[in-house]
Amino acid sequence: MQDIFREHIEKVIPLTDEEFAFVFSHFSYQRYKKRQYLIREDDHVEHAYFVVSGLLKLEYTDLSAKRHIVSFAMEDWWETDFMAYFNGTKATMSLQCIEDTDVLCLSLADYHKLCSGLKKMERFFLKKSNSGHIASQQRILSFLTSNAKERYDQLLQQYPSLFQRVPKTLLAAYLGISRETLSRLSY
Amino acid sequence: MQDIFREHIEKVIPLTDEEFAFVFSHFSYQRYKKRQYLIREDDHVEHAYFVVSGLLKLEYTDLSAKRHIVSFAMEDWWETDFMAYFNGTKATMSLQCIEDTDVLCLSLADYHKLCSGLKKMERFFLKKSNSGHIASQQRILSFLTSNAKERYDQLLQQYPSLFQRVPKTLLAAYLGISRETLSRLSY
Repeated sequence: MQDIFREHIEKVIPLTDEEFAFVFSHFSYQRYKKRQYLIREDDHVEHAYFVVSGLLKLEYTDLSAKRHIVSFAMEDWWETDFMAYFNGTKATMSLQCIEDTDVLCLSLADYHKLCSGLKKMERFFLKKSNSGHIASQQRILSFLTSNAKERYDQLLQQYPSLFQRVPKTLLAAYLGISRETLSRLSY
Repeated sequence: MQDIFREHIEKVIPLTDEEFAFVFSHFSYQRYKKRQYLIREDDHVEHAYFVVSGLLKLEYTDLSAKRHIVSFAMEDWWETDFMAYFNGTKATMSLQCIEDTDVLCLSLADYHKLCSGLKKMERFFLKKSNSGHIASQQRILSFLTSNAKERYDQLLQQYPSLFQRVPKTLLAAYLGISRETLSRLSY
């Protein structure tokens, strides 16, 4: 697990053994079972999570109790309710396991300590944040420019493995379409 | 103009006069006229822009030549085609003035020089990138959870000044609705 994590960071910045030990000391390891919640709506958001293995969904429940999936997070992804995490506000979204999931947890206090203690970790997080921002912009574009069928095809092309790992109901909640529409698209 | 820019940065990190001079030396100043393009689709994207005054639109044209507005950028905002800027790929979006606009321009080479030369600027850009990422997530949520009327109301509440400054056709292209639907909503 340390190897996976180190490799992930070293894709952006090289680390000595000592530096990696320093980085790693800021994280705690947690194992969650399928269907378990890492964050519930209205929780105080304690951690950002690096997914070592498994699969999570970040979900928003609207006023009519309908659930919408903001994102899936699998191996090598960082996920949390970032607004609540950075602003210290209550969670507006929930984060739940679709599969048994192993994560590395980073509190906001430790995030700041880590960035102060090893400046190049700011470069690492900046790279990650820029990539996240770009991915979000692409998703906004897909809502503006694509119909349900096209969004389905884009997702299939980008993340083929999701179609094996995620129940149809959840794919529909991610694409913003009904379960019935999804069934028509996928045959 | 230097005052506005310095104040903007010092909301995140304090700077000495010397440090600010160093930061500022990485930017060039440009004035653009209403309707002028800062970036055209397929351009090589040279710069990220800090808007000193004025108003820009970041726009995507789909295969059927329909235009979709990804974002508006006004005073105090950073804007560019971030994917093309960071990855060195060609622009997939255009950036154009809705009003006469003054910007400070930062090339990617100068962005890296600036971050290496003054490490705390990485903290500044990290903060900005995180905020941008959060704003994009909120917009994704609004597409998933809200109908045209609700998205219109959210925009009106968040950026009332846009409704004075932006023609209705462009507001419709941002909300992902037709000009006719927008007219029904706004009366």
